[in-house]
Amino acid sequence: MNNLQNVDVTLRDGGYLNNFNFTVEYAIEHVRNMTLSNIEWIEIGYKNGSFKPIDNIGITGMCSNQYVSKIHRAVPEANLCVICHTKNISKSDITHLYGNGVGFLRLCLNIDTCTDEYFNQTLSYAEHAKSLGMLVSINAVRVSQTKLNKLINLVWAAEKYGVDIIYLADSNGSLTPRLVNKYISTLANASDSMKIGFHAHDNINMAMANSIEAHLAGAEFIDSSISGMCKGSGNLNIESWISYVTNNLGSDKYRLGHLFKQCEILSAQSFFIKPERKVLDMILGVSNLSVEYKENPLFANMDDVDKVLEGALSLSRGIPA
Amino acid sequence: MNNLQNVDVTLRDGGYLNNFNFTVEYAIEHVRNMTLSNIEWIEIGYKNGSFKPIDNIGITGMCSNQYVSKIHRAVPEANLCVICHTKNISKSDITHLYGNGVGFLRLCLNIDTCTDEYFNQTLSYAEHAKSLGMLVSINAVRVSQTKLNKLINLVWAAEKYGVDIIYLADSNGSLTPRLVNKYISTLANASDSMKIGFHAHDNINMAMANSIEAHLAGAEFIDSSISGMCKGSGNLNIESWISYVTNNLGSDKYRLGHLFKQCEILSAQSFFIKPERKVLDMILGVSNLSVEYKENPLFANMDDVDKVLEGALSLSRGIPA
Repeated sequence: MNNLQNVDVTLRDGGYLNNFNFTVEYAIEHVRNMTLSNIEWIEIGYKNGSFKPIDNIGITGMCSNQYVSKIHRAVPEANLCVICHTKNISKSDITHLYGNGVGFLRLCLNIDTCTDEYFNQTLSYAEHAKSLGMLVSINAVRVSQTKLNKLINLVWAAEKYGVDIIYLADSNGSLTPRLVNKYISTLANASDSMKIGFHAHDNINMAMANSIEAHLAGAEFIDSSISGMCKGSGNLNIESWISYVTNNLGSDKYRLGHLFKQCEILSAQSFFIKPERKVLDMILGVSNLSVEYKENPLFANMDDVDKVLEGALSLSRGIPA
Repeated sequence: MNNLQNVDVTLRDGGYLNNFNFTVEYAIEHVRNMTLSNIEWIEIGYKNGSFKPIDNIGITGMCSNQYVSKIHRAVPEANLCVICHTKNISKSDITHLYGNGVGFLRLCLNIDTCTDEYFNQTLSYAEHAKSLGMLVSINAVRVSQTKLNKLINLVWAAEKYGVDIIYLADSNGSLTPRLVNKYISTLANASDSMKIGFHAHDNINMAMANSIEAHLAGAEFIDSSISGMCKGSGNLNIESWISYVTNNLGSDKYRLGHLFKQCEILSAQSFFIKPERKVLDMILGVSNLSVEYKENPLFANMDDVDKVLEGALSLSRGIPA
């Protein structure tokens, strides 16, 4: 088995289903049980919001210093991780996260649409976090819309700033194993020092198959969440993934019973919402269109699904690998 | 792409969720749209019930001559398939199925528990169906409990009777890609004439990854159903599978729009029930225990999940590959 480090993203990506309204008490219990399950990293939320502002965003959408330090003090042995968008944070925020026990900072980046300034600012934040001793990743989003050579250039640029991991997020849930293999193996071989991560979405039920392929192709960091809790059709679900790692790869590292227990605990909460794969999610996945297209008038009437799919495919620019 | 023939099992395996109470009208519309989607085979039900008798079983659990001929007359171009247990049928039933337009007969068999007499009777039914000109498979159930050498012997025995396909059904949802590869590639190489099929269950979210692996390893027949409709955590879902075949394997054979449309139509029916993966399903999958263990007192109280998993693993005999 290749090296594997798991990042549980339930409290963060799951937040898209409940406006980030987990309770602090739940977050502490979650972090405790995930740590007991031997999940390597637990992402406890966004620092200062998602990419677009969200009204009345809950605690895991903000990661106030108070929230972070409460979790750290309650479960000091936990490996905490926080994700952020460069435009929402400052160097001082990063220092506070570190001071409150967060060991892993993840910086989201859309390398297709960001300005040079934004790109450089992101790398400067990465450098700052590295100077504090944090583990640092840059999480390239919507990679199914991104040319592979741009991702190779990202690896080379980030390498110079000491970034540990380049993550590929299949935000549209459009990748299939053949392309995952191509992207991951190319990037894993592009640098001696850079590790590769993979974040799957499940629009066409490919989260598991793609994550298996990503790991086989050299990805060492894999994201997942309880029940795949996340907007749309969800993430890779952690309980299945760890079952796979245990049964197929023969790992005895993880405590499946504790993990299953936390599934039961979360599913009993009022703020738990199970992701559901709808035909619209599948059409977006097949067409490589982002979740924002849900607002497109094309999808207002799904009576003639065949025609809607045709329309979606005509909007699509394919996958530019 | 290897040869691939899909069998849609919605009307049959989906029946476990609604006591086989689909309507004839729905079945006709289903068969029509699946045929328009270019799905190769549509399984319209069990002949004369499931393995265990079921009270008030609906139409797709019995496949009366009237039901079968209605579908055949309404959609004569459809490739119809029926599955059965040897103990429930006679040669005359097979002749009637053939006479009413069914081109593919599937015979379920548990080669670990059946008597020699039952085994021979099954082969004699297969021979009869072949003599009529039907496509014939023997569907080995619970293969995760079966030694590979027994399956090899099944291939060799069935070959002599002209059986076209040996299916492996991962009834417990316990297989992972490594074992699927081992089973399928071994069997695909055991005979020049025999084709191999795979029927996945999704207890640990492996239906897609296992089916991908099965096809890569040489399986030419793959079962799936709309939304994975089936007891427990479901089958491979056909809409995702065909999206994979289209996007990853580059097939332009299937009409995804028609398939998605049928998903919408089915999900709007009162007799549609979506399968749900519960922690208990996962524990059975991880432990390689059959669905019948759901009645075991061990699972009556799930408060201490860690202990329940431990108990399940102690009941388990592992996977005897």
